[in-house]
Amino acid sequence: MPGSMSTATAPSELRTEPSALERYETVRAFTDELTSPISPEDQTPQSMPDCSPTKWHRAHTSWFFEEFILAGRADYRPFDDRFRFLFNSYYEAVGPRQPRPERGLITRPDAAEVTRYRDHVDSEMKDLLSGNPTAEVLELATLGLNHEQQHQELLLMDIKNLLFSNRFHPAYTVADDPVTGRLDIEHTGWTRLGGGLHLIGHDGRGFCFDNEGPRHEALVPAFDISNSLVTNGQWLEFMADDGYHRPDLWLSDGWATAQTLGWDAPLYWTQEDGRWQTYTLTGDRSITPEEPVCHVSYYEADAFARWAGARLPTEAEWEVAATTQPPATQFRWHPAETANGDRPLRGLFGSVWQWTSSPYTPYPGFAPAPGAVGEYNGKFMVNQQVLRGSACITPPGHERVSYRNFYHPHSRWPFTGLRLARDES
Amino acid sequence: MPGSMSTATAPSELRTEPSALERYETVRAFTDELTSPISPEDQTPQSMPDCSPTKWHRAHTSWFFEEFILAGRADYRPFDDRFRFLFNSYYEAVGPRQPRPERGLITRPDAAEVTRYRDHVDSEMKDLLSGNPTAEVLELATLGLNHEQQHQELLLMDIKNLLFSNRFHPAYTVADDPVTGRLDIEHTGWTRLGGGLHLIGHDGRGFCFDNEGPRHEALVPAFDISNSLVTNGQWLEFMADDGYHRPDLWLSDGWATAQTLGWDAPLYWTQEDGRWQTYTLTGDRSITPEEPVCHVSYYEADAFARWAGARLPTEAEWEVAATTQPPATQFRWHPAETANGDRPLRGLFGSVWQWTSSPYTPYPGFAPAPGAVGEYNGKFMVNQQVLRGSACITPPGHERVSYRNFYHPHSRWPFTGLRLARDES
Amino acid sequence: MPGSMSTATAPSELRTEPSALERYETVRAFTDELTSPISPEDQTPQSMPDCSPTKWHRAHTSWFFEEFILAGRADYRPFDDRFRFLFNSYYEAVGPRQPRPERGLITRPDAAEVTRYRDHVDSEMKDLLSGNPTAEVLELATLGLNHEQQHQELLLMDIKNLLFSNRFHPAYTVADDPVTGRLDIEHTGWTRLGGGLHLIGHDGRGFCFDNEGPRHEALVPAFDISNSLVTNGQWLEFMADDGYHRPDLWLSDGWATAQTLGWDAPLYWTQEDGRWQTYTLTGDRSITPEEPVCHVSYYEADAFARWAGARLPTEAEWEVAATTQPPATQFRWHPAETANGDRPLRGLFGSVWQWTSSPYTPYPGFAPAPGAVGEYNGKFMVNQQVLRGSACITPPGHERVSYRNFYHPHSRWPFTGLRLARDES
Amino acid sequence: MPGSMSTATAPSELRTEPSALERYETVRAFTDELTSPISPEDQTPQSMPDCSPTKWHRAHTSWFFEEFILAGRADYRPFDDRFRFLFNSYYEAVGPRQPRPERGLITRPDAAEVTRYRDHVDSEMKDLLSGNPTAEVLELATLGLNHEQQHQELLLMDIKNLLFSNRFHPAYTVADDPVTGRLDIEHTGWTRLGGGLHLIGHDGRGFCFDNEGPRHEALVPAFDISNSLVTNGQWLEFMADDGYHRPDLWLSDGWATAQTLGWDAPLYWTQEDGRWQTYTLTGDRSITPEEPVCHVSYYEADAFARWAGARLPTEAEWEVAATTQPPATQFRWHPAETANGDRPLRGLFGSVWQWTSSPYTPYPGFAPAPGAVGEYNGKFMVNQQVLRGSACITPPGHERVSYRNFYHPHSRWPFTGLRLARDES
Repeated sequence: MPGSMSTATAPSELRTEPSALERYETVRAFTDELTSPISPEDQTPQSMPDCSPTKWHRAHTSWFFEEFILAGRADYRPFDDRFRFLFNSYYEAVGPRQPRPERGLITRPDAAEVTRYRDHVDSEMKDLLSGNPTAEVLELATLGLNHEQQHQELLLMDIKNLLFSNRFHPAYTVADDPVTGRLDIEHTGWTRLGGGLHLIGHDGRGFCFDNEGPRHEALVPAFDISNSLVTNGQWLEFMADDGYHRPDLWLSDGWATAQTLGWDAPLYWTQEDGRWQTYTLTGDRSITPEEPVCHVSYYEADAFARWAGARLPTEAEWEVAATTQPPATQFRWHPAETANGDRPLRGLFGSVWQWTSSPYTPYPGFAPAPGAVGEYNGKFMVNQQVLRGSACITPPGHERVSYRNFYHPHSRWPFTGLRLARDES
Repeated sequence: MPGSMSTATAPSELRTEPSALERYETVRAFTDELTSPISPEDQTPQSMPDCSPTKWHRAHTSWFFEEFILAGRADYRPFDDRFRFLFNSYYEAVGPRQPRPERGLITRPDAAEVTRYRDHVDSEMKDLLSGNPTAEVLELATLGLNHEQQHQELLLMDIKNLLFSNRFHPAYTVADDPVTGRLDIEHTGWTRLGGGLHLIGHDGRGFCFDNEGPRHEALVPAFDISNSLVTNGQWLEFMADDGYHRPDLWLSDGWATAQTLGWDAPLYWTQEDGRWQTYTLTGDRSITPEEPVCHVSYYEADAFARWAGARLPTEAEWEVAATTQPPATQFRWHPAETANGDRPLRGLFGSVWQWTSSPYTPYPGFAPAPGAVGEYNGKFMVNQQVLRGSACITPPGHERVSYRNFYHPHSRWPFTGLRLARDES
Repeated sequence: MPGSMSTATAPSELRTEPSALERYETVRAFTDELTSPISPEDQTPQSMPDCSPTKWHRAHTSWFFEEFILAGRADYRPFDDRFRFLFNSYYEAVGPRQPRPERGLITRPDAAEVTRYRDHVDSEMKDLLSGNPTAEVLELATLGLNHEQQHQELLLMDIKNLLFSNRFHPAYTVADDPVTGRLDIEHTGWTRLGGGLHLIGHDGRGFCFDNEGPRHEALVPAFDISNSLVTNGQWLEFMADDGYHRPDLWLSDGWATAQTLGWDAPLYWTQEDGRWQTYTLTGDRSITPEEPVCHVSYYEADAFARWAGARLPTEAEWEVAATTQPPATQFRWHPAETANGDRPLRGLFGSVWQWTSSPYTPYPGFAPAPGAVGEYNGKFMVNQQVLRGSACITPPGHERVSYRNFYHPHSRWPFTGLRLARDES
Repeated sequence: MPGSMSTATAPSELRTEPSALERYETVRAFTDELTSPISPEDQTPQSMPDCSPTKWHRAHTSWFFEEFILAGRADYRPFDDRFRFLFNSYYEAVGPRQPRPERGLITRPDAAEVTRYRDHVDSEMKDLLSGNPTAEVLELATLGLNHEQQHQELLLMDIKNLLFSNRFHPAYTVADDPVTGRLDIEHTGWTRLGGGLHLIGHDGRGFCFDNEGPRHEALVPAFDISNSLVTNGQWLEFMADDGYHRPDLWLSDGWATAQTLGWDAPLYWTQEDGRWQTYTLTGDRSITPEEPVCHVSYYEADAFARWAGARLPTEAEWEVAATTQPPATQFRWHPAETANGDRPLRGLFGSVWQWTSSPYTPYPGFAPAPGAVGEYNGKFMVNQQVLRGSACITPPGHERVSYRNFYHPHSRWPFTGLRLARDES
């Protein structure tokens, strides 16, 4: 099973039925809150094959509960048999499915029907969780909720990409951003860590995805990690120093990609009267030099680090650094680097996902769960890079020190940024 | 100007203001009637670059009146300046516009806003037509209405294509088809026509598009034309005789296209338990051998004609044949070959567009109108084939003997069929 | 059969065996002369799928004789059975064949082996023609020689394209161009022709390809045709007037093609220190304003004509004009407009192929020959435009008033230019 | 510098001038030996962008000496200035160059001219090495020779791919394979290794490429590694068990690739009368079950390992295993698993490159050399997988325990196979 939870050590609110129900209600309601501003029209297309329509996210997350929990129950009647085809994402074991690049052509069911579908699944799941659910049901429900939280972030990434494709850059929400003040995030130096063997991977307390284990020893020589995230201001310096036009700074594949796609700034940046602005979920706004740079690919992050005379951290280094600072985040529309008390490292969580130099591979001893649910993570362990931390739009409570996010090195539409590392000098 | 109307010979109902107003109201209302069953979700995507979203058709036809008639008026305030970018189809002279393959990404304005746009344009146009419109306004209004009628057919073609892309083939409408009986349309022989010079092109009475003129003499040697359209039953014989797998029957480009795309039947035909059915605007239904074949490309029509020992008619031949039989049609969801009194030729109008062997070229002396409106027809006169007649979903009153429709030879999503011709033997 | 020759009217040198043999030897030797400067390396690749390697042309033209004449003879032993696969061009009836875009991967047989193949076919053909060949053999031999002459021109077009792909633009030959003087080809006015019915198509005297018949009446209203070809100097004016950047001058497909491919001058033109030069078979050389423009597509020719306030002639118009001036040409490396005695029309033959406004379609009553040889012309009669005349690199003796050449409207690598026409004013 | 050699520890034959010269002559002569059976025609095209023409390999390896050693010398005159453009592979710092997919269009210089180029460079290099070369020259010469050895293998891979594209599968050589006997390579069990920290990377004795260092400690938990390579016979079992059609065995990207490209066997395998054969440098021959499987991608190797209930080794595991068994190989046309005395692990070197589960990343502390030569390895460290060992066509003497080869996970044209690993159970 892709996510697991040691019954012995799981927190009490996940072990008892009322808590599972409560958690279910909270997570599902948050999806509804995030999608409530999105019209049926906005919910329907996809701007590129990587992105899915909002309507699809809403249905797929419900299908996950239906397919993996409800469908196996003797008395369950599927809401609509066709949804198994339409809303399966990539589970080969479940059977044929809508081709990913054609999710935007699913105009039926319409948004209202998807709402009825969600209600149907909610009603069944609440019945189940209110009763005396088995440990397996509880585990799968927890997995389904974590899955839904991933899609909460994805749907925001995807709607942002879609709305940006409209030349007039309409906003997803006019809601004010809860961030009011701005921090002084001048480069605040380095922290030295590592040296010797460290335990890496989930420690077994609470939920984790299968790719976060097995916990294992790793050799992490001493290294420095930057206390701050790389900022827009620093990125403008990189651009001013011709960083996008110097092949010596780039990986070969990155250079080819940047040339082919004409990259000369992060995704969503546009120039208006000679001044840079960036498109956000609340519309276009001026670049703020103090904020963390966001929407850069691995290739760009790697080139920036080389330009800065540094490198990206490995995922083990990042985890060693984060282990000392448990997550403390707040949901926001824009990435902002937040202090974590008086600890030196800022912005580990809740700002931007941070590219690491580690390709996404299995931990020693990793084995996916049998059956369809085993396709959750393992089969993607090639051609991608690990990102660590979490982003401002990651649902609060979904972060973990051991969390392994992953994207292809050319991806820019996630909320991706970076922090630097260097060898002990 | 792409459409023109001789003031001297125009029928009275188009020359006086009340009639223009009435006509405006009728045509615009028909668009609303056709689009009323289409949900906001169905209105948004496009299934391929050739097709446009319903919402886009609704807005674009309104933009046409705004751009070419209202915008030039001193007191007119555009409904939304951005629509000039979003809803211009291909008029280079008007300026930059939404790329055609990305029309399906225009989620805003939403469907309700487009309705308000239509109302706004209607209100202004009705004011104008109720007053004392100039001859130029009247001509442009007539052009705009004929343009809208073209889009009425297009939007049905396009929504059909979109809904078919849904694996479960939902129907556009559950409305009963008005056709109840079926005609015996066994092959009913040939009619001999032609021989000598004939006048081809619009005769100046009433409206026509610019590509229908100038009227000119053409040499049309004697020929035979089939009284009936080619039927599904005949097409099944072609298929049974391996027609899709014999390169000697095909044009080289057609053969390459058929191989690449894996054609083995008309578009929308699928096999269920060994029996052929076809997707229609009212859903899947069994193939009816007596009905005209529909949704075949020029390449297929040409191959069929060769297989049948005949050929396709030229557009001049078709026009010579149709001149003797003025259009008499009825709007239907499915093509059905109708008799036209006791005249020998059936199905000239109101069933399926009929491929001709004529590439789409200008008539001798053709010159497009100056300005943006001159881009209406002339710039497409290469790489396409002429089709004649009209289809079951062509708005009644939109047919003409001289009407020249045109599509690329691989196009199959229009309601396209064929009738045969042969040289005098 | 694609080419035919009325026995009654054929010139004596084609009807008797010695002449057929002599003709065979002459044509085959000219191929050898043209290909002698081409190294094995130059003979091997193809620069694009439209082009074929020299080695392939040499083998394919030999295969044509083998397949259509020798293979049917009881005592004939094929040189190598594999060549039927490798050197069949597009004859579906002959069987599977090397994919066209992969002709450049046929490294074996090598060039020397192809020479042996040519010798083998020559030996057999000469035996046959020295004997008492049947009329069918004679007809097919004539077709094969005309076919080889077409490939003589093609191989020069193709080697030019290949060598141009080398950044350093090596020359095909350092031989001096036989043209020494230059004509004053200022625009020399128009000739009025046409009006009424004209006989179009081959008149039956001597050889022609099947697509040049049947001879038939065509209505050709009065028109003016320009006495001169359009020149480089005139093309520079078109460019200076922003002709490549004004969509109103272009067909829609042409505009899209020009934008996608970044056209801003004819093919093979490059700018060096602000001055235009053009790549030729003898290397780069400065643009000569007086010479006919060459290597323009139909789209460009059409746009130029519109810019000039004229149009391209139809193929019937062109033939009416040429009928009065029988071909008189000389083989050259560069197009040069030559006078034809004191006749007004210059450059009809022997300079550049001239785009017509006529799509390539069958003449009334056209029917291809049965069997593989019937694939020669008919199956290409869609999506292409007719060109008339001949080019400087067309083998002398291969021109005819009724000759119909054809290319796709985007093609620029043939030696293509234009002359203008206009309606009677 | 991408390759380095500790002067202190280098073996005597590389430190003294005569040895450097001798080594130069030996390596260069081996290229000539390998390319001598390749005709000018075979030397010219490339079968896909990944592959280069033989002629290009011959010139490029010479250019490497010219660019990095000779060009910097005051008295050196380049053989042809244009070669810097034509034969630079990917060194951005050197300047613009022939696009990789168009290397097959370089028909000039011809093969004979490339031979003269090689002679010119040889003459200059021999003069230089016969004199009193600096340490830098010696290091660069060693790098250049190792570079040339890499291209000796590449050119065989590439000519094999090209000749296979010929439908008749001509052989590169008819020379007998030196392998006469066949080993019994039934699965011969596992060897347990690892447990604790190991030194990984080049130990500084003799030449290595920059990517093989810095030498560093790595934690390698105990593991089992298979004594034998996976064989054709085992691969046939995988195929018989539907291994190519079970998505649960595959990485997601691998599954998509296999479906798109229609993989159902290793590259170069074809079926003839129901029996599998494989194309080799000596032509088609029957599959030998006892031989190591070759020409499988990482995706296939990974799927096979999963099917076998095992996994691929990491590159550190592989190196730990190989450290105990220094390379002992023989050049052959076909991979054959050889015993290495009585040591348990067979086929580590000299059979097939072995895919590891390790993505290609820099070792801790890795930094490329400054300047163009620094582009040798570092910029490719993303999106590729490490392979270890060497192949039958790897030039003898070019193997090393620390050698890191790398290819994209879909690559099949290198001589790639696999051995299995598993966790300590």
